[in-house]
Amino acid sequence: MTIENISSNKLFGGWHKQYSHQSRALNCTMRFAIYLPPQASNTHKVPVLYWLSGLTCSDENVMQKSGIQRVAAELGIAIVAPDTSPRGEDVADDEGYDLGQGAGFYVNATQAPWKSHYQMYDYIVDELPELIENTFPVNNKRAISGHSMGGHGALIIALKNPEFYCSVSAFSPISNPINCPWGQKAFTAYLGNDTATWSEYDASKLMATSIDFVAAKVDQGGGDNFITEQLKPESLMLAAEQSNYPLELTIHQGYDHSYYFISSFIEEHLRFHWKFLNR
Amino acid sequence: MTIENISSNKLFGGWHKQYSHQSRALNCTMRFAIYLPPQASNTHKVPVLYWLSGLTCSDENVMQKSGIQRVAAELGIAIVAPDTSPRGEDVADDEGYDLGQGAGFYVNATQAPWKSHYQMYDYIVDELPELIENTFPVNNKRAISGHSMGGHGALIIALKNPEFYCSVSAFSPISNPINCPWGQKAFTAYLGNDTATWSEYDASKLMATSIDFVAAKVDQGGGDNFITEQLKPESLMLAAEQSNYPLELTIHQGYDHSYYFISSFIEEHLRFHWKFLNR
Repeated sequence: MTIENISSNKLFGGWHKQYSHQSRALNCTMRFAIYLPPQASNTHKVPVLYWLSGLTCSDENVMQKSGIQRVAAELGIAIVAPDTSPRGEDVADDEGYDLGQGAGFYVNATQAPWKSHYQMYDYIVDELPELIENTFPVNNKRAISGHSMGGHGALIIALKNPEFYCSVSAFSPISNPINCPWGQKAFTAYLGNDTATWSEYDASKLMATSIDFVAAKVDQGGGDNFITEQLKPESLMLAAEQSNYPLELTIHQGYDHSYYFISSFIEEHLRFHWKFLNR
Repeated sequence: MTIENISSNKLFGGWHKQYSHQSRALNCTMRFAIYLPPQASNTHKVPVLYWLSGLTCSDENVMQKSGIQRVAAELGIAIVAPDTSPRGEDVADDEGYDLGQGAGFYVNATQAPWKSHYQMYDYIVDELPELIENTFPVNNKRAISGHSMGGHGALIIALKNPEFYCSVSAFSPISNPINCPWGQKAFTAYLGNDTATWSEYDASKLMATSIDFVAAKVDQGGGDNFITEQLKPESLMLAAEQSNYPLELTIHQGYDHSYYFISSFIEEHLRFHWKFLNR
């Protein structure tokens, strides 16, 4: 595997770097970003927080808008931000912002024309951590977080791989995609009409029947325009009650769906993850 | 004066809001952003830091990318971010990114076709503070800061109006515009070929002969690609030595010209300003 460095910026004593590489899971060239805190070196490997972004986003949103690097530099956590879908001229796409490029939904597509590239679940769970751990001064302590579609991705990935992650968090996740328009549109396209296959990518369904737990924190803005129709945090709350899942879910009055909300609480998320990454 | 609210986002317990208004100085509709910290109320008026942005920017860059609101919320400082030039279809423009719309250079233009709109100096010094102080729960303690072209703007405005500002700071300012390509191009267009008129908008020229001082802090990335040809922090350092100006100027090794640099040191700037705003 060869990867190419395409940008570098110093911040908070560490380095933000973008790389491109040929992905075997996605069958296209992918870009990701990593923030390496000042503590990271070959003699001091640091844990990693994976950040999954939302619809229309790339690796750049969280790195430019969340302020995540300040506390990552203080604690000594690397941040990895992948893209939100396969990309390229020969990659299937859709006119909608909520399907196709920029909207991979972190699933493995089974339907044409999507299945030849849209294998985001495998990319995030297998290929990317292997690449990161073979390339950078990081250890094998992993946490995962994300926003909106990426909050959905973080939750399902941690719920399906509890041994692989120390902790999971999400901002404004799509908590019950099989019951909201965004999820139904994407899952119909990527997974087909047989809704029985959808449940393995639904955080509320997975959490309701979980036995192996990962410490989980979810924050949701009470002023978020998408809360009722698309996000449904109450579904996740009910699921956690069913399985007695260790979920900290908080609704923050007045906050919306933007990175302004994320920037306000990202420090709390990093300190939450640090408790489990630092054990 | 009527102003129209066009967006609102809660962050760090306060509110980021964008407004549009008809500017008499600029003779066009202008947008600005304000961050009101949670402390701000009609019974507790807060001081204001004006942030002037760089080439190609608008009110949005500092609000989305710097993380400035976190410490502004802690200390209780309002942040006001104006646009970088007049805007609109009937406003003169240029194909270059460094002249015309997005590149007002915070001067009052005397030359056609610029002079009918490009009066950014008057807008920042007179019209905008009057509007802000008549509209929002702020007091008359003011500080000013900015980046690159906006660092130049902050410095010349504070140097020319020492009684009006408690403190000034800048990131990577164009410190000696009469001696660099960006400044020479803009000043030739806006001020004409008589270079004698340029010096009143040159921070190094103004600082070298200053008698009334404003506490000043400047930070510059040592890895900034523009440092030698365009920014020339050494000119400002020499000027401060000439007048014994109270300037704290620091070069930070490895940091570049981006908001990643600004985000790393914005907290230090706010705490610097707070010492003078809180007297």
